Amino acid sequence: MKKNALSVTREDDFSAWYQQLIAEADLAEESGVRGCMVMRPWGYGIWERVQFLMDQRIKATGHENCYFPLFIPLSYFAKEAEHVDGFAKEMAVVTHHRLMKDDADGLVVDPEAKLEEPLVVRPTSETVIGTAFSRWVQSWRDLPVMINQWANVVRWEMRTRMFLRTSEFLWQEGHTAHATRDEAMEETLEILEMYRSFSEDVLAMPVVAGEKPENERFPGADATYSIEAMMQDGKALQAGTSHFLGQTFSKAQNIRYQDKEGQFQFAYTTSWGTSTRLIGGVIMTHGDDDGLRVPPLIAPYQVVIIPMLRDKPEDEAVLEFCSALTKQLSGLRAFDENVRVKLDKSGVKASNKRWAWVKKGAPIILEIGPRDVSEGNVSALRRDALYKDNGKLDSQILEKDVFAEQVPALLEEIQTKLHGEARQRLDANITRGLTDFADVEKFYKENKKYPGWLEVQWCRATGEELDQIEERLKKLKLTFRNVPTQAAAVDGDCIFTGKPAVERILIGKAY
Amino acid sequence: MKKNALSVTREDDFSAWYQQLIAEADLAEESGVRGCMVMRPWGYGIWERVQFLMDQRIKATGHENCYFPLFIPLSYFAKEAEHVDGFAKEMAVVTHHRLMKDDADGLVVDPEAKLEEPLVVRPTSETVIGTAFSRWVQSWRDLPVMINQWANVVRWEMRTRMFLRTSEFLWQEGHTAHATRDEAMEETLEILEMYRSFSEDVLAMPVVAGEKPENERFPGADATYSIEAMMQDGKALQAGTSHFLGQTFSKAQNIRYQDKEGQFQFAYTTSWGTSTRLIGGVIMTHGDDDGLRVPPLIAPYQVVIIPMLRDKPEDEAVLEFCSALTKQLSGLRAFDENVRVKLDKSGVKASNKRWAWVKKGAPIILEIGPRDVSEGNVSALRRDALYKDNGKLDSQILEKDVFAEQVPALLEEIQTKLHGEARQRLDANITRGLTDFADVEKFYKENKKYPGWLEVQWCRATGEELDQIEERLKKLKLTFRNVPTQAAAVDGDCIFTGKPAVERILIGKAY
Repeated sequence: MKKNALSVTREDDFSAWYQQLIAEADLAEESGVRGCMVMRPWGYGIWERVQFLMDQRIKATGHENCYFPLFIPLSYFAKEAEHVDGFAKEMAVVTHHRLMKDDADGLVVDPEAKLEEPLVVRPTSETVIGTAFSRWVQSWRDLPVMINQWANVVRWEMRTRMFLRTSEFLWQEGHTAHATRDEAMEETLEILEMYRSFSEDVLAMPVVAGEKPENERFPGADATYSIEAMMQDGKALQAGTSHFLGQTFSKAQNIRYQDKEGQFQFAYTTSWGTSTRLIGGVIMTHGDDDGLRVPPLIAPYQVVIIPMLRDKPEDEAVLEFCSALTKQLSGLRAFDENVRVKLDKSGVKASNKRWAWVKKGAPIILEIGPRDVSEGNVSALRRDALYKDNGKLDSQILEKDVFAEQVPALLEEIQTKLHGEARQRLDANITRGLTDFADVEKFYKENKKYPGWLEVQWCRATGEELDQIEERLKKLKLTFRNVPTQAAAVDGDCIFTGKPAVERILIGKAY
Repeated sequence: MKKNALSVTREDDFSAWYQQLIAEADLAEESGVRGCMVMRPWGYGIWERVQFLMDQRIKATGHENCYFPLFIPLSYFAKEAEHVDGFAKEMAVVTHHRLMKDDADGLVVDPEAKLEEPLVVRPTSETVIGTAFSRWVQSWRDLPVMINQWANVVRWEMRTRMFLRTSEFLWQEGHTAHATRDEAMEETLEILEMYRSFSEDVLAMPVVAGEKPENERFPGADATYSIEAMMQDGKALQAGTSHFLGQTFSKAQNIRYQDKEGQFQFAYTTSWGTSTRLIGGVIMTHGDDDGLRVPPLIAPYQVVIIPMLRDKPEDEAVLEFCSALTKQLSGLRAFDENVRVKLDKSGVKASNKRWAWVKKGAPIILEIGPRDVSEGNVSALRRDALYKDNGKLDSQILEKDVFAEQVPALLEEIQTKLHGEARQRLDANITRGLTDFADVEKFYKENKKYPGWLEVQWCRATGEELDQIEERLKKLKLTFRNVPTQAAAVDGDCIFTGKPAVERILIGKAY
């Protein structure tokens, strides 16, 4: 029987597999600081690729990057009541600004150095950025304001999980202000579409874009949209959100402008974000029992070259061949960028290096020994197609230049294939047609392991009615995901209330 | 008399000029949060260029990026006594993790949510990264470890100044561990040289690289090296530091490895950093009485095109011409990158736009009116040579394609010219040859406004002797800058003690 690189399989224990993959692929590790992780070079390298490619899209749609303070005075939060109420109050609070030695020569917080006003470590920046907007926006000429920041944020989480829910995480948060409701709504949806296409085209991670029901809105938002990705265990991962904030924040923070007629108007604002959580999504979308498979567009290295060294004189020729090959491949272009090639000269045994890169998920792995050199060949492994039917590694021996010529197309093929696989899984695991809530219960009882999602018709309940539905779902550990923007028209009654349905909505278990 | 774009000149009040430039060039502003600034798009755009170009150099020298936690448990600091003693204890401390409503419906810190161990917001990351190194390093095969992170850090400053000294700032911090002393020292000096050449070649900011005397070392370091830049008021700005940490931190944090013979050895570590302070240096090196002049390599936009619009039908032809020109210029290459071009279509009056871009310091500013369009010309302003001898703006009218052809060379010429000017100023303002301390006092009394620096010979005092010298300098508001690595040999006695001199050292007022 085929033995895999990870000792835990997805089938055995999806959650343990996820943890092991993160460790074995050198993506991240526990830091010793509660709820915070260390992102190691391979994990952080993937994030750098995500940043680089998303930043281009953010700028191409007219946004500029800024940087706002990490600390937000407590009083800023008190300004917007709904925001405060709805937002989890679990935040890190700075109360003192000095340490001192105690009698035992230890280090303690200096009680004399108490801040007059506590500072909250930003959980999101609407309040502090809104305050800046109120300074920047005076006239209709100042609008729209469209900015973004790449930053760390902190939300004190009781139960943390690497990449998915950590106390500190890295993200981008966009914030815009517009003269009209229509323009702000257009921005909200344009970003939703940017997130959707980024997820599909760059992360090769299929998603459903749609609107959240009222109970899942961002605190203070008039409407919240999300992209929802399906993990290999059938659970949903909310991978990005775009909020139409209406005039809630502009009224709380006095973001006002004089229109062309000289009248004062409140602006309409939006905010939107994606985070290092996307990496968790990539892992649970593309990982297999041998580790991660990184889509070529976001792979820090797309081709890894492993010289098979034996502490013998012929090592020199192998290294020379590998160096020349590194240069040759680095000069190629794929996805409108130079191909990213790593020559792994580290002192580790070649077969260990191979498995390390398999676990990390480099798209193409080359092993070069003395025989390859003398014959001018490379032995190439595709990470997305590691094994032959007989369970042996499918290492292809190719003439060096023949291989090199294929690299750009091969990388694009791998990207497409990973996306295709995941797209098929998403499409196959949305169940439609249930019309009775009892069947929902039954469905999740019968499909415990990989249930996927249900798309049902409903009445777009709000308020108390929605609360009651939420309770019923909660008993099954289910939540509303979103109302897909691309869903079919309704043709029946609400599965919860029996009233006429007005839209279709996705239900699932979620991270 | 020529009128300048800023109302305060450098000559009148250098400090007020600095503040005004930052405001008028839209670089940054006060945030309302004590000691923290908002970096606006033009200021942050310059930082993004600095990041992009320095990151390439960091990676080219074999370092990989990681990300470590923002919070450091208090106990981590207690481990390395010298580090704690020497380091300013002014740090932001998180003591609670929750907010709650009080009786008056206001928001307060929940006293029940006190952390068991306070968390310090990182002022620098030696302690938390050293802890990770102790996990990563087991064998000589694991060395060297060479990593870097781009992050925000916080040092609670009593008196803050935008870009130069803010409570929160952005920086990169490199951390490495090596098997031998020699290798770690080589790394320390290689980074010093990288900082020096980056400052000269990219920022066009000349610096002196050298070693700090004992009293100016990083707490816990065996040796600290710096690059020192000269501002236009003759003061020094420490613009980057590289520390050889010896085994101090590896012993405190147990970074041990088994050598080839199986013996346990402590590693040797280094750390090094540069920050958004570099932007303060760029302002005070290249700014003039019309605002900033951004060196083309770090200018977010190198060419700004201003269409002169008048709400008339011919506007359309002007915009069309400008769009085509934007495309044409964006296709050009300078410094191995595409030229960065901004078409400023905002609704502001053309002459206001011109002055806004002059103050921001875009290297080349084009103004295009209907007559230029009909004649196929551009009117070009060079920011580094704004005026004719008669004090009028030196706007050059050139045939569009003739101009376009010159752009790459022009940008390189501007970069070189800015560097040359600043280099001349640095060289002209280091005074040598003083041998008596009384003359130092006299020199700074006679050259109050732009004294520049002194290079004197000294005995490399340490301990108490050094403390006494430091006191004498302090009375004149002077500090040691560094011992230039490129200084001439000594040929006399120590200016402070009369003992034989062993090296030359720079003295000056500093930011």
